[in-house]
Amino acid sequence: MVKAKEFIETAVNEIKETVGKNKVISACSGGVDSMTATYLVHKAVGENLIAVFIDDGLRREGEPEFVVQTLRKSGINTRSIDAKKDFFQALKGKTDAEEKRKAFRDKFYKTFGKVAKEEKVRFIVQGTIKADVIETVQGIKSQHNVLQQIGINPEIYGYQIVEPLKELFKPGVREVARELGLPKEISERMPFPGPALSLRVLGEVTPERVTIVRKATEIVEEETADLGTFQNFAVLHNDKATGIKNGNRVYGNIITVRVVISEDAVTAKAKDIKYEKLFNIAKRITEELPTVVRCLYDITDKPPATIEFE
Amino acid sequence: MVKAKEFIETAVNEIKETVGKNKVISACSGGVDSMTATYLVHKAVGENLIAVFIDDGLRREGEPEFVVQTLRKSGINTRSIDAKKDFFQALKGKTDAEEKRKAFRDKFYKTFGKVAKEEKVRFIVQGTIKADVIETVQGIKSQHNVLQQIGINPEIYGYQIVEPLKELFKPGVREVARELGLPKEISERMPFPGPALSLRVLGEVTPERVTIVRKATEIVEEETADLGTFQNFAVLHNDKATGIKNGNRVYGNIITVRVVISEDAVTAKAKDIKYEKLFNIAKRITEELPTVVRCLYDITDKPPATIEFE
Repeated sequence: MVKAKEFIETAVNEIKETVGKNKVISACSGGVDSMTATYLVHKAVGENLIAVFIDDGLRREGEPEFVVQTLRKSGINTRSIDAKKDFFQALKGKTDAEEKRKAFRDKFYKTFGKVAKEEKVRFIVQGTIKADVIETVQGIKSQHNVLQQIGINPEIYGYQIVEPLKELFKPGVREVARELGLPKEISERMPFPGPALSLRVLGEVTPERVTIVRKATEIVEEETADLGTFQNFAVLHNDKATGIKNGNRVYGNIITVRVVISEDAVTAKAKDIKYEKLFNIAKRITEELPTVVRCLYDITDKPPATIEFE
Repeated sequence: MVKAKEFIETAVNEIKETVGKNKVISACSGGVDSMTATYLVHKAVGENLIAVFIDDGLRREGEPEFVVQTLRKSGINTRSIDAKKDFFQALKGKTDAEEKRKAFRDKFYKTFGKVAKEEKVRFIVQGTIKADVIETVQGIKSQHNVLQQIGINPEIYGYQIVEPLKELFKPGVREVARELGLPKEISERMPFPGPALSLRVLGEVTPERVTIVRKATEIVEEETADLGTFQNFAVLHNDKATGIKNGNRVYGNIITVRVVISEDAVTAKAKDIKYEKLFNIAKRITEELPTVVRCLYDITDKPPATIEFE
């Protein structure tokens, strides 16, 4: 890629040209991609930008507060929308991965569309990056933020999408984030999928099940923070398994731990975590989560697996 | 325990006393427990023993032929019953672990009961060991071969159960097996559950799904034969996950690999297999089984998990 500074200059000019004096909304999930896109647009349009954080109930522990505070500290107009009930309602009873993605995507666009109407904007910024575009075109991923690339008319949702990062891979995005002066917790943070923890709850997504995977995610992130790996997370299975708690036979939950090395998410390698650490993760998860009796570690590269399970 | 030789002497006398000149059937799954019990009873009653191998369609690759040949080579009267269709019919549509165990157990006893009637026997030998008894009494396990211990009247099945190994733990059983001159492939072999691969197919047990887990089991056993671990196997999940095969996004099967160190199956530790070996197992399973996109490794001890998943 061209140097971050030049990239930013060009992107800012292009955004100014596209958006003009109009108001813009930036969809902010808290990930490095959407945050970098937001800061880039803020640099271009200043007060005309409204960053919107949709609290879908599917974020990591402490994430909604962290994202909103970070944006506001940087002087960005920020709206936080509590849509937890709406998302859980939309996901209720759905167990198929594609149906869940679709339900999330539809709810996401509808919620944004509503805010966009309220704010009377025509432009919405999203943090789509090159890996998303490639995989969506190849049919490997059904990405909620690259509608234009796959030929779906975004006008049915009532707004036009601006994607300033779509020519960059992840390392390029991080360079831009650093150059824009984003906090290190953002510029260096791990990727997190748009549909968030809903992809990490196999089977039906309920508030109770999201709470389990959120806690397991927190443990995995704490225990693997020193590894410098690309992505570290937990998945709650729909399958159950036998175990023993307090001397009694129980039929409990299964958590899989996934830690991968990758440059750009297009390919990835399962990490050879030291067993002492790995067994300790299993111990913490089964001790701190009363319903969990079993922990598995994902030993598959991408391909043939994907990084996420859904 | 007392020495194997003395144990055998006492057991043989007791069996002779119990059984007298009657005919006996021995339920032979092929595991070290049932094989040792069978050889012990054969030593006591000789020609009056009929070893019965029920082919339930749920055994490991090559297992039915191996068990029957081994018994016959040792001069033991052996009947092999093809009950594959019956067992799959009984398991059809059942997804709950306890329902599956119950369906297996009922079919097992009915099939044996039928043979016992044909052969006009009153006694049936089973390879119950002490760990089974302890865990059934504690409610940790629902074991199909310890009915008497949990107060179920075996007479409803039409015969009486003889369990000569119920005072021994696994290492004691192996000593007895060696002393009785069983082939090393039997005396040193890994434990294998009575309900066999049906416990290793989470969700519905169909011939197609058993074929997948059987092949995965074969790969795991081949690759871990040198480890000297207590039990090594594969589990097919009911959950599915995304993956990439031949460049296309697919929604495929998940296999978990389980390898544990244990003395007596009452407690167990997940084995710290070298990653080179572990990743190679994942590679072979996802390459040799077209529907499998993801391999997991079980990192949980017993407790809080059990060795098997169901």
